[in-house]
Amino acid sequence: MEKKSTKAIGAVAATEALEELLIQRREVMAHDVEIEILYCGICHSDLHAVHNDWGGTTYPVVPGHEIVGRVSKIGSEVSKFKVGDLAGVGCIVDSCRSCSQCHDGEEQFCENGWTLVFNAPDKISGGHTYGGFSESIVVDENYVVHVPETLPLDQAAPILCAGITVYSPLKHWKAGPGKHIGIIGMGGLGHMAIKIAKAMGATVTVFTTTESKAADANRLGADNVVLSTNKKQMKDCPKQDMILDTVSAKHDVNVFLNLLKVDGSLVLVGLPNQPLEVGAFNIVNGRRSFSGSNIGGIAETQEVLDFCAKHGITADIELIGVQEVNTAFERLEKGDVKYRFVIDMKSI
Amino acid sequence: MEKKSTKAIGAVAATEALEELLIQRREVMAHDVEIEILYCGICHSDLHAVHNDWGGTTYPVVPGHEIVGRVSKIGSEVSKFKVGDLAGVGCIVDSCRSCSQCHDGEEQFCENGWTLVFNAPDKISGGHTYGGFSESIVVDENYVVHVPETLPLDQAAPILCAGITVYSPLKHWKAGPGKHIGIIGMGGLGHMAIKIAKAMGATVTVFTTTESKAADANRLGADNVVLSTNKKQMKDCPKQDMILDTVSAKHDVNVFLNLLKVDGSLVLVGLPNQPLEVGAFNIVNGRRSFSGSNIGGIAETQEVLDFCAKHGITADIELIGVQEVNTAFERLEKGDVKYRFVIDMKSI
Repeated sequence: MEKKSTKAIGAVAATEALEELLIQRREVMAHDVEIEILYCGICHSDLHAVHNDWGGTTYPVVPGHEIVGRVSKIGSEVSKFKVGDLAGVGCIVDSCRSCSQCHDGEEQFCENGWTLVFNAPDKISGGHTYGGFSESIVVDENYVVHVPETLPLDQAAPILCAGITVYSPLKHWKAGPGKHIGIIGMGGLGHMAIKIAKAMGATVTVFTTTESKAADANRLGADNVVLSTNKKQMKDCPKQDMILDTVSAKHDVNVFLNLLKVDGSLVLVGLPNQPLEVGAFNIVNGRRSFSGSNIGGIAETQEVLDFCAKHGITADIELIGVQEVNTAFERLEKGDVKYRFVIDMKSI
Repeated sequence: MEKKSTKAIGAVAATEALEELLIQRREVMAHDVEIEILYCGICHSDLHAVHNDWGGTTYPVVPGHEIVGRVSKIGSEVSKFKVGDLAGVGCIVDSCRSCSQCHDGEEQFCENGWTLVFNAPDKISGGHTYGGFSESIVVDENYVVHVPETLPLDQAAPILCAGITVYSPLKHWKAGPGKHIGIIGMGGLGHMAIKIAKAMGATVTVFTTTESKAADANRLGADNVVLSTNKKQMKDCPKQDMILDTVSAKHDVNVFLNLLKVDGSLVLVGLPNQPLEVGAFNIVNGRRSFSGSNIGGIAETQEVLDFCAKHGITADIELIGVQEVNTAFERLEKGDVKYRFVIDMKSI
């Protein structure tokens, strides 16, 4: 297989800072598109992977899974894209394509295991995959989406992970007019969830531990803001149909389970690396559920991009150059970003 | 309000054994039926209440919420029962009757709080309610169900709590032909769940930690029995649509969450008094849910009795006299019963 040296930003060990690396990408094959990367968002799971927080990281690791760019080359059989098209790549770059989940467009639940855009065994090229902190990427067209030309491209990049990760459960649990939807946490995912749930027509309540975020929550579209450490505010809060939990640290979910209506669901999209404790009475009373949701399929990723274009939704970002990526990681670790870092990949 | 002295079995303190007491019941009012109690099951929550394990017990406490008897007197406005009818009473003896849940026949989720058959403030008579360990009980006809004459009455009593508690979630989560339904635990609830899920047409897998229970699980109707402490058996187990968790002690739910299909639910009906730990990945992967369910409404309690009569389902019981109730409590605490104690109330 023909390979091509490609500039990237990655880490050679868990203890090392990110640095410029040369990686090998395959040349486009029949069904591939090569994308010149314009912008790539930084998600908290990039940080976890680089630091090997969940185990299983293979080095060198090149993170990045919120990728927006322009198609620079296409394979002979490509029909969905032409050179010059805007294109987006999220978490998924391959799956088995034959199981019932793949057939249903829910590749995120592929029964035979899908391929993550970085740090996963690469069934096509061999070795492991390298993500979007890079000048370009080569992906099978079936795992590439169209980015609407009307979206500001830097602010659109986070839709590829933060956007789809909240859109998918909001749609699955039927957020819409007449529904009370709660959002816990106001980070990269949470701030997108506020905008998307509001655009879906729901009444949106934001739960935060940080009083100073209230004004910003309202600006983003929240109808109500509840300080979750304030017992009176929690008690007075109207019961919710669904609460989306975007928090990635250990926290008490029981106080939120008790805010659900009968048959309501608390849906976790954050990934705390310690287990969360659930009191039996808090789910038995009211037939409530503590559920999870994981990104979304390719078709739904296209859907959320189109939804965001239609409703004028993008992420609130801080645009940085590749030289600032280590500082950005440090600040992200402390939650010091409103609300997503995006790397201008032309700076590589 | 006219009252009547009634013999009952109860405890005067958490540290005391059960003993014969005289309690005051109201005389029947316009909408009441008086039931001469024939049989009353013993549920683990009777034990918890007597020992004040969950707090909030008011003494003297008369437990018992799986009540079968014959109507011995009716109020002037009663239309649903006549003297001599078989009648059953479960957990719920009153509710607000005006909220949307009560209107939907889901009194167990009454927004204004329903009245438990024992140890709850009695909105009609004052004081607190006394349960079925008693010679008779007076209940508003709207909270009394018909017990089919074809059921053996002693074995039917546990349907009023154990039966409805498993029937309601099995129906809600659509157990039926083509569905894989798991049952964790083979006690009072678990053994009824096996019979009911099988009668609904599901493929039933029983998870137990006790190898010796396998033969009995098959006898009760299980298609598969998996020793949950055996890693190979757990790995080879087919993925389940829903797993009903009847265990009332602290246990690891994550191993069962990982046995669910995409969108599957682990549904807790046991009431462990310590929180259960849920690992984020175990619900996020596969969009799974850890849910709860609590008894069932009055209409559904009638439905499960009719379902059991139609399918010839009753509980496997050990019939005892009132003199044996303290011994039964001790044995129940150790899980030493197959599978439900029922008190012959004529022995009082």
